Amino acid sequence: MTRTDAAPSGPPRAAVVVTGTEVLTGRVTDRNGPFLAERLRQLGVDVGRVVVVGDRRDDLASALSYLLDEHDLVITSGGLGPTADDLTVEVVAAVQGRVVRHDEALEQRIRDRVAGIVRRRGWSTPTAVLEVGTRKQAMVPEGAHVLEPVGTAPGVVVTPASGEGTPVVVLPGPPGELQPMWAAAEADDLVRAVLDRGREIRQGTVRIWGPPEAELAALLRDLQEETGSPLDEQGLEITTCLRKGELEVVTRYAPAASPAYERLVAALHDRFGDQVFADDARSVDDVVAEALLARGETVATAESCTAGMLAARFADRPGSSAYLLGGLVTYANQAKVDLAGVPQQLLDSVGAVSAEVAEAMAVGARERVGSTYGIGVTGVAGPDGGTAGKPVGLVHVCLAGPSGTRPVELHLGGPRDEIRLRTTIAALHLLRRELED
Amino acid sequence: MTRTDAAPSGPPRAAVVVTGTEVLTGRVTDRNGPFLAERLRQLGVDVGRVVVVGDRRDDLASALSYLLDEHDLVITSGGLGPTADDLTVEVVAAVQGRVVRHDEALEQRIRDRVAGIVRRRGWSTPTAVLEVGTRKQAMVPEGAHVLEPVGTAPGVVVTPASGEGTPVVVLPGPPGELQPMWAAAEADDLVRAVLDRGREIRQGTVRIWGPPEAELAALLRDLQEETGSPLDEQGLEITTCLRKGELEVVTRYAPAASPAYERLVAALHDRFGDQVFADDARSVDDVVAEALLARGETVATAESCTAGMLAARFADRPGSSAYLLGGLVTYANQAKVDLAGVPQQLLDSVGAVSAEVAEAMAVGARERVGSTYGIGVTGVAGPDGGTAGKPVGLVHVCLAGPSGTRPVELHLGGPRDEIRLRTTIAALHLLRRELED
Repeated sequence: MTRTDAAPSGPPRAAVVVTGTEVLTGRVTDRNGPFLAERLRQLGVDVGRVVVVGDRRDDLASALSYLLDEHDLVITSGGLGPTADDLTVEVVAAVQGRVVRHDEALEQRIRDRVAGIVRRRGWSTPTAVLEVGTRKQAMVPEGAHVLEPVGTAPGVVVTPASGEGTPVVVLPGPPGELQPMWAAAEADDLVRAVLDRGREIRQGTVRIWGPPEAELAALLRDLQEETGSPLDEQGLEITTCLRKGELEVVTRYAPAASPAYERLVAALHDRFGDQVFADDARSVDDVVAEALLARGETVATAESCTAGMLAARFADRPGSSAYLLGGLVTYANQAKVDLAGVPQQLLDSVGAVSAEVAEAMAVGARERVGSTYGIGVTGVAGPDGGTAGKPVGLVHVCLAGPSGTRPVELHLGGPRDEIRLRTTIAALHLLRRELED
Repeated sequence: MTRTDAAPSGPPRAAVVVTGTEVLTGRVTDRNGPFLAERLRQLGVDVGRVVVVGDRRDDLASALSYLLDEHDLVITSGGLGPTADDLTVEVVAAVQGRVVRHDEALEQRIRDRVAGIVRRRGWSTPTAVLEVGTRKQAMVPEGAHVLEPVGTAPGVVVTPASGEGTPVVVLPGPPGELQPMWAAAEADDLVRAVLDRGREIRQGTVRIWGPPEAELAALLRDLQEETGSPLDEQGLEITTCLRKGELEVVTRYAPAASPAYERLVAALHDRFGDQVFADDARSVDDVVAEALLARGETVATAESCTAGMLAARFADRPGSSAYLLGGLVTYANQAKVDLAGVPQQLLDSVGAVSAEVAEAMAVGARERVGSTYGIGVTGVAGPDGGTAGKPVGLVHVCLAGPSGTRPVELHLGGPRDEIRLRTTIAALHLLRRELED
């Protein structure tokens, strides 16, 4: 049953079911739920729930039944492979009351695609071995619309056999297959009928570096008092999140609530000043990359505890070769001496985790790579290696540039990966502040 | 209602509700669902579903009602902060039919914790600003068991007001708070009553590098024919997953099904030989680290397209300083010359993405860092920079060691981050094979 009658005024609602025991247990991180949630928001469809289920018939069927009741569109990802634990088509067909039939022409198209992949990879898998999977993947619920395979698995759009009702869009798990296939699904007339009812939902993101979450909460309360009504009644759906030291304020609103949103953004700037580093959804990576490009400047790294994470993070972005020249991973002390030119005497006198060594690393990276800026990072990521004077979580970061050096001393909590990630982000903010000056 | 009566023979079932619009939209990756799923499995409790909901009252209430019906224990994470979008305690209380009351003594304990944090961070937040959040966090459902705060938010265990029924354990979102608080929850008598019914569930993981998933599917079918009954009827719950080139076979089984599991593992070894690189849940990182430690050998990297990812991945592991000495990020061509000693003439004649340059980088890293092995990586990660002769996805990896060099040429698909990650994993397997020889 669709929600159309119950709530005719709101945007259509969609839910996502992610299948796979590997996702449930965290061995694989789901990227499809977020991709679909964001894409549907752009299309004016609200996604309020993502359900992750293991590869079990009953759990998948129960999740589908629950979501079909409360949503206008349900999308599944995963479970379309050639192995027996891939059950999605079969279960969706059962829930929608459809029998599954073999599609001869589709099977031939899948066979051709499989043959092409086997050829390219140089596999010697016997044809008979492949045929079982091919036949399985060519089983389609009666009356369903087929979405042509991007890899080897076709998707399907399945409505209830009883007639009107919520369609289920069945997509493959690999993001590289799901994303192009979703683009095709958007053009399917059953899906289109839901999307056509979409209402524009805007989303604004403000990012702040520095203040505690309680100060943000206080500002929101003050704003509410000043404007005389709760912010949600003004049409703002605000979520705030503190992560890795950055405060993120994400607001969803209909176009009519734009003035209220503008008031919120102005109040954030007013209260937090230059701690607000982006009010247009840019990340610190974006801000730094754009500033380096605009100034025609370059960067190099010398990393100990992060051991390449900072350099790799610069290189995450296409086109980063315009400003990332190179870097040094100086994990062992000898590498600090040999690669970054840190004096052995300095290491002996103040130790590897020190402001002095961070500075020498930053200067060394800048000189040896020949970049505008050098960033040095040295710290105790743990869990071992901490001392009373230099506990786990103590990190020294230093930026070297044309106008000298800028040191920062961090005291971070949490496990090893958290300390290394927060160090990387703090290093980006150190460079950002230099570039904004 | 608990499932005890309906299915007295199976293990108790638990479900996890992860709250937070930031998780729903993928801005934050949930780590709590996987942590709880794994911990509960060890305790003999089966987790079949994780539901992610945004910070909305109705969506959270609906998810809870749905899960309470079908599970013996429901655990929530997140939504306990000081801001108004943190609603979990209030909604759980409503669903369980409990009123929420202010807990004076708890408030004082939270106030003390908040004061300590503000002092350590050096914040100048006014006390009045903090008090509103403190008061909110001290609101507790009547009859609930309080779990003492690890950060500033307490957790609660809430049973239905009507008497017997499924308890909800409410935990904070930050993993650093959730994990210690869950340990305390395990000792709570309401939770204990469920855990005491736990049945041992074993989990075995076999990892294979090389063959297509279809060959694995064929082996499972063959095994089924040989043994004369479906593998799930033999008590094996098998999930297979192909990720980043590695085939992963995860099997859950009760102790009684151990002989069937041993047959499966033997069949995998028999069919795939030394393509099976671990049958004890070790990752390729584990295998490589253990081999380097056992042999007392060391490694250094020279990375272009991965730009530090490989070095950082070695350093993910505590104790990696025993074998990771350092590395070079040679992103620009000049850095390849200056840092790794790649001859300019070689770059001019064969180009940066070539087997020759990968080899020169590997040799350069090994020599300059003084390690047993050097690994060179150069490729076209895209989306731009590809040519007809050197398309996006072409990557050359080379290992240099005491017995010479081992080159590998990769042809990878997918987006930039996928190409870089698969390259990193392929480089680890190249080193693994060398270490196993």
